[in-house]
Amino acid sequence: MPKVVVDVMPKPEILDPQGKAVLGALPRLGFVGVADVRQGKRFELDFEGEVTEAVLAEVRDMAEKLLSNPVIEDFTVRVEDAVR
Amino acid sequence: MPKVVVDVMPKPEILDPQGKAVLGALPRLGFVGVADVRQGKRFELDFEGEVTEAVLAEVRDMAEKLLSNPVIEDFTVRVEDAVR
Repeated sequence: MPKVVVDVMPKPEILDPQGKAVLGALPRLGFVGVADVRQGKRFELDFEGEVTEAVLAEVRDMAEKLLSNPVIEDFTVRVEDAVR
Repeated sequence: MPKVVVDVMPKPEILDPQGKAVLGALPRLGFVGVADVRQGKRFELDFEGEVTEAVLAEVRDMAEKLLSNPVIEDFTVRVEDAVR
């Protein structure tokens, strides 16, 4: 079944408190060398039929209206090989 | 700056109420044809130095201990081209 992945990340200029919390926790767990962490969301959408260019346009529409907040988040849409 | 991406998704056998909520909202917004939606998390980690195999092993360790809950979530770790 073809799968479309939508990645939603906070825009670079937006503060990301979740990412900062992870970044702050890493040294306490003994991990060093990480310069920055950003946390976002990943959506996997399964489609019944073929994923055409029209379907991808529709997914971009979904991402803009439902999956992301375009004021503070950027998103990317891509087809992923149906390997799990 | 090299970037390592950690994708954390609910295991296939685990209920995903966030994904189900999105799936339920799609027809109300006029979107049809989506068979299933799963929602997970995406972490982008920036590293100062080179991302070696040892660094990736450390990121897998982070993912297991901090970024995911291995009881209910699976994760994947990969290096992403530093293109934004």
